[in-house]
Amino acid sequence: MKTDAYRVKEGKKVRLRDWNTDDDGGLDEKDAKVLTKRLQDQLFDWQERLYAEQKQALLIVLQARDAGGKDGVVKHVVGSFNPNGLKIASFKVPTPEELAHDFLWRIHAQTPGRGMIGVFNRSHYEDVLVTRVYDMVDANTAKARLKQIRHFEDLLAASGTRVLKFYLHISKEEQKSRLQDRLDEPGKHWKFNPGDLKDRAHWSQFTAAYQDALTTSTAAAPWYVIPADHKWYRDLVISQIILDTIQDMNPQYPKVNFDPDEIRID
Amino acid sequence: MKTDAYRVKEGKKVRLRDWNTDDDGGLDEKDAKVLTKRLQDQLFDWQERLYAEQKQALLIVLQARDAGGKDGVVKHVVGSFNPNGLKIASFKVPTPEELAHDFLWRIHAQTPGRGMIGVFNRSHYEDVLVTRVYDMVDANTAKARLKQIRHFEDLLAASGTRVLKFYLHISKEEQKSRLQDRLDEPGKHWKFNPGDLKDRAHWSQFTAAYQDALTTSTAAAPWYVIPADHKWYRDLVISQIILDTIQDMNPQYPKVNFDPDEIRID
Repeated sequence: MKTDAYRVKEGKKVRLRDWNTDDDGGLDEKDAKVLTKRLQDQLFDWQERLYAEQKQALLIVLQARDAGGKDGVVKHVVGSFNPNGLKIASFKVPTPEELAHDFLWRIHAQTPGRGMIGVFNRSHYEDVLVTRVYDMVDANTAKARLKQIRHFEDLLAASGTRVLKFYLHISKEEQKSRLQDRLDEPGKHWKFNPGDLKDRAHWSQFTAAYQDALTTSTAAAPWYVIPADHKWYRDLVISQIILDTIQDMNPQYPKVNFDPDEIRID
Repeated sequence: MKTDAYRVKEGKKVRLRDWNTDDDGGLDEKDAKVLTKRLQDQLFDWQERLYAEQKQALLIVLQARDAGGKDGVVKHVVGSFNPNGLKIASFKVPTPEELAHDFLWRIHAQTPGRGMIGVFNRSHYEDVLVTRVYDMVDANTAKARLKQIRHFEDLLAASGTRVLKFYLHISKEEQKSRLQDRLDEPGKHWKFNPGDLKDRAHWSQFTAAYQDALTTSTAAAPWYVIPADHKWYRDLVISQIILDTIQDMNPQYPKVNFDPDEIRID
């Protein structure tokens, strides 16, 4: 499966309305799930090589509007990885101690070490998204931050960490339907946050902020705009991109410094 | 399935040679795996309640000799949890900064927050095990540490964290067979650590140290000696104990402070 169409080209500004939210690749849910399972079985093996090699790391950044599917990707895609080689970080509203530092301080602390796959459920990009929409930072600060983010991600890349950034792209109608589900099903009430409606009322401002954020797509840290109205297609596309990326990183089992035939176990 | 027989009773010193390593509960591998899958599906749902409730936490401590199956439990049991509510910590040889603090400093920093399941792959118990066997600490220090560990785990319990401690109990023959596998299969060479043979040569000293460590079994932080020669039985027993424990904690979906019928999504 080809995923290049979902990749944001370097140096090109994206108009999100030109990107479909409801692509399904011509597949139905059942077939897509079979394909996804197959990719994830391969991913599990490649993850072991990455872990054994201890030379490179992979960082997966998840960004989306409310109900966009971040938690779903963690559950259905990341959930298929071996937890031994996994480091997950969720970024909420910063604490006073975090606010006493630059915005990348708490982020840097959570990056994956060599051999690991890191997953950011929200990320440093919140600092140019929600903060920008509600005027907590001005346009110049946001612009400076985008440059700082590029430099930060370059640093990670230079020390062997590949970064994959996924924007889960849903339509306004799909968001409405998902939020309504949370109201209709008592078992999902706890997932509903009335504050999400405020963000929804700022739909186009968030679109503009995301379009700016997506300009940080580089070869070492590309952004992908993932069609996410169909959860099963979203999971398939993301699984494929992660697999392609690890295969491209091509981790190798390390050579050992002993001769297995010479060792006797008493 | 009853698991009480594997629980270390409070105030009673264990002789590990009295505990079987090769129990299989009268099951075969196929049946055990079906049962384990069923328990894990239930666990997944209970984990969501724990996560939604945000009042309690569960900490799972894994200890074992080399090749005892810690990584296997993370892969096959912990791997079935939702990563959104999971925090895994592996403790290796302490860094200089960690050594500059008391032995519980780095441990405390990694405990799970409310709503989370934490997993320790090795733990503070290393500080009364390997350190004791190789005389890095004397008997008095080790004794003091056991008391400090009890106090620390009492603190966790008092703030809503249930602690489950699993010693994965394998026979000396089973360890030999697993280590030999790592030598025989090129894809497993990276897992073989020649230093493991040194620990193996100190088998009975480790047994004595484990027997001391197991005296920290309390109602709030019990030790279980898990028969671990059969990996599939080990996974079944551990899944059952975790499920029983979460059900006993009985987390509830929180009441929401809004009326779902009153909310209109534009």
